[in-house]
Amino acid sequence: MPITKYALPDIIFGPGTFARMPLCARQLGAQRVLLVSDPGVERAGWVEQATDLLRADGLEWVYYNECVSNPRDTAVARGAEVYREERADVIVALGGGSPIDTAKGIAALVGNGGRIQDYEGANKLRKPLPPLLCLPTTAGSGSDISQFCIITDRKRRMKMSIISRTLTPNISIVDPLLTHTCDARLLLASAIDALAHAVESYLSVLSSPFTEGQALESVDRIMRFLPAAVQDKKPEALERLSIASTQAGMSFSNAGLGVGHSLAHTLGGIYDVGHGAVHSALLPVVMEYNMRDCLEKMAGIGRCIMGGELSNAEDTARGGIEYLRNFFTRLGAPVRLSRVLPDDTGLPAVSVGALQDVCTLTNPRTPHAGELLALCREAW
Amino acid sequence: MPITKYALPDIIFGPGTFARMPLCARQLGAQRVLLVSDPGVERAGWVEQATDLLRADGLEWVYYNECVSNPRDTAVARGAEVYREERADVIVALGGGSPIDTAKGIAALVGNGGRIQDYEGANKLRKPLPPLLCLPTTAGSGSDISQFCIITDRKRRMKMSIISRTLTPNISIVDPLLTHTCDARLLLASAIDALAHAVESYLSVLSSPFTEGQALESVDRIMRFLPAAVQDKKPEALERLSIASTQAGMSFSNAGLGVGHSLAHTLGGIYDVGHGAVHSALLPVVMEYNMRDCLEKMAGIGRCIMGGELSNAEDTARGGIEYLRNFFTRLGAPVRLSRVLPDDTGLPAVSVGALQDVCTLTNPRTPHAGELLALCREAW
Repeated sequence: MPITKYALPDIIFGPGTFARMPLCARQLGAQRVLLVSDPGVERAGWVEQATDLLRADGLEWVYYNECVSNPRDTAVARGAEVYREERADVIVALGGGSPIDTAKGIAALVGNGGRIQDYEGANKLRKPLPPLLCLPTTAGSGSDISQFCIITDRKRRMKMSIISRTLTPNISIVDPLLTHTCDARLLLASAIDALAHAVESYLSVLSSPFTEGQALESVDRIMRFLPAAVQDKKPEALERLSIASTQAGMSFSNAGLGVGHSLAHTLGGIYDVGHGAVHSALLPVVMEYNMRDCLEKMAGIGRCIMGGELSNAEDTARGGIEYLRNFFTRLGAPVRLSRVLPDDTGLPAVSVGALQDVCTLTNPRTPHAGELLALCREAW
Repeated sequence: MPITKYALPDIIFGPGTFARMPLCARQLGAQRVLLVSDPGVERAGWVEQATDLLRADGLEWVYYNECVSNPRDTAVARGAEVYREERADVIVALGGGSPIDTAKGIAALVGNGGRIQDYEGANKLRKPLPPLLCLPTTAGSGSDISQFCIITDRKRRMKMSIISRTLTPNISIVDPLLTHTCDARLLLASAIDALAHAVESYLSVLSSPFTEGQALESVDRIMRFLPAAVQDKKPEALERLSIASTQAGMSFSNAGLGVGHSLAHTLGGIYDVGHGAVHSALLPVVMEYNMRDCLEKMAGIGRCIMGGELSNAEDTARGGIEYLRNFFTRLGAPVRLSRVLPDDTGLPAVSVGALQDVCTLTNPRTPHAGELLALCREAW
């Protein structure tokens, strides 16, 4: 087995743990918090609850909400200015992947200076970051667990993957009650993002015995509980999705991802399409592409997806992919990129960009740009 | 699901990772290391290799080796004096559970002052500890991963369990090559300790979806690879035991243990018997005792142990226990306490002491002292 590194934030999981936020912030040394969130989370009422909690605890705060889907370099730079000007000491991120990634980008700049572009790639952040506490309001991004931070460079129309041990938050408070205000569309897109994290990290060349079990358990939980979560917002089902998303985060943060995420990142950069909306179209195609180089593992995923196996490894792997496509269709998730993108003119640029994405390095099959373009066309 | 907390050190796993020790110590701020080990590890040659690595890197060090099996309060107090007098800044623990627990006790006193007795129980350590880097030379104690520290109070003839998030080491470097110098007896006792960690934490009332999978995978790996590790010291088998021990550590540090460990701690305190030597006698008896209150989970362990299931949950659970007893017997591990203890006069005191042990709180079945004495007699 090759050398593997494994790191996680401290995780506090369970309904009602939101209320521990001020105490955890204080444990990280907080006197004046930079609270990072977005208008959607405000509308759901969680920002007000967060500031109520801070007030009741006597903690000062500054609020920053310039976070959009596919969070931007410019918002990160402004957030870092706010942190410095306001003399904040701890960053609290409350939201889905976008506010959390924005908060991570802010932390990177506060600790290391310069522009966020300076840190694209793996292990470029050399200096320590200010303490970061995350409270995810969706069950999917895993950014509250991971050492990944994905920021869009608007000028170059591309998403930068910034990966560093120091981007692992100090504490992640995963309160599944926070996902109760998500609508069905957001629940679905988030869970499919988590499913892609679990599958891609399980197939990754850097997967290890410490990540593989969590990845498969995550796949199993999402398959079993996503329908009830989307249809009836059953609290038990939503809780299981939060568990699954956390497990997928534990896996991909330490094992890396694959070309599905390379393509999703590049599609997000070029088309500014929501990250969660493209995985239902990409994941089955990417699984078919990878099968040649990791048949046994693909059969393992097939067993997990179908809850049983077919006569041989290849049939089980293919059966899992087919089952997944039907599952996505039944749930109303787009299985064609043409349903979420305005036109296909950007696809050649997407495939070239995805080849450079750091997630491509850990994909089990090494692609060339032509293959990535073929994947996009197949998913179109 | 109840609220759960999950914390781990940064883990660096793989053959040859020992050489990264100086770099990791520097990352923790080291200029002058307190290296904690013991005469057995010296004889195996690892202490010399460690000091060679430190010298080559230009790091200063002080060496402390007053560690014995069932590490003592007095050794912890002297080690803390050495740390302070020598102005060390990072503690590096190299060895099995005894040097690592000694190092943790030293760290506790350096950070919090007073006597180690002051911190018995859960969450008594309020102030931060100096950085701690662990390099386990056995595959079993899991102390390099866990927030547990077990220290013997010689006057009271009892082992104290000290449990605190801050006792989680900063970094654990798990190099399976370090276990190659263990003899068969030590490999066996260490692996059975890890097996007890996995089983007891899986059954614990604080187990969670984040710990249960790692626990079962650990059981599976130990059952499959322990024979080859003990008989031929096959490198692949030793590596799998290191993986299994790390997984069991990830599980029990966050889920806690049960009465098997309560009894083992108390037996160690009263008889000064090696911790690893008593689990092969205790574990099957404890599993039988717990079965009433966690039949489904016990069946899960039975399936894992036997690699298959019998006609119903109870048969599968009982089958697993029987299989385990035969497995221990075949490997030459004692399945009777009478084989490792000089006499049974201390057993009443053992059962009273075990009732107070913090591990009893997380056992799935709540015992009274009479039941614990009956367990000892049954294992006699």
